[in-house]
Amino acid sequence: MPIASPKHALDPALLALGIAIKALRKTHGISQEELAHRSHIDRSYMSSIERGMQNPGVMTVVQIAAGLGVSVAELAAKARL
Amino acid sequence: MPIASPKHALDPALLALGIAIKALRKTHGISQEELAHRSHIDRSYMSSIERGMQNPGVMTVVQIAAGLGVSVAELAAKARL
Repeated sequence: MPIASPKHALDPALLALGIAIKALRKTHGISQEELAHRSHIDRSYMSSIERGMQNPGVMTVVQIAAGLGVSVAELAAKARL
Repeated sequence: MPIASPKHALDPALLALGIAIKALRKTHGISQEELAHRSHIDRSYMSSIERGMQNPGVMTVVQIAAGLGVSVAELAAKARL
């Protein structure tokens, strides 16, 4: 189980990002496991990101957006960031 | 001097983000020092981000976008991410 970001876990921006990732994932009918695979990241880390517990780096966000088939800008707009 | 991200330094996405931050900063006539101050991050770290040497976390990107007075979505779109 990945350790939550001690400094930023559950920050509103990270919660919003996680909710947006989950919503887009569901819209596309992709399981969390499949999205983690497409994004080349660990499933439990993906789960932790979706729950707003992580402060992922830009590269991870780029990979997740690619896994969802959207741009980072679209993902950020969905999260209202 | 901040240590460059060993894994991701100079990745095209990070270079594009750095270029976009610098371009928006110049458009707004803000010095790097002023943007670092507004974004609550260290000036040398800001410089390193603008040169694509860092893989900043989402929270840092949120702070920089706020410092520039744009949304993360606008910043990501500017960087074509």
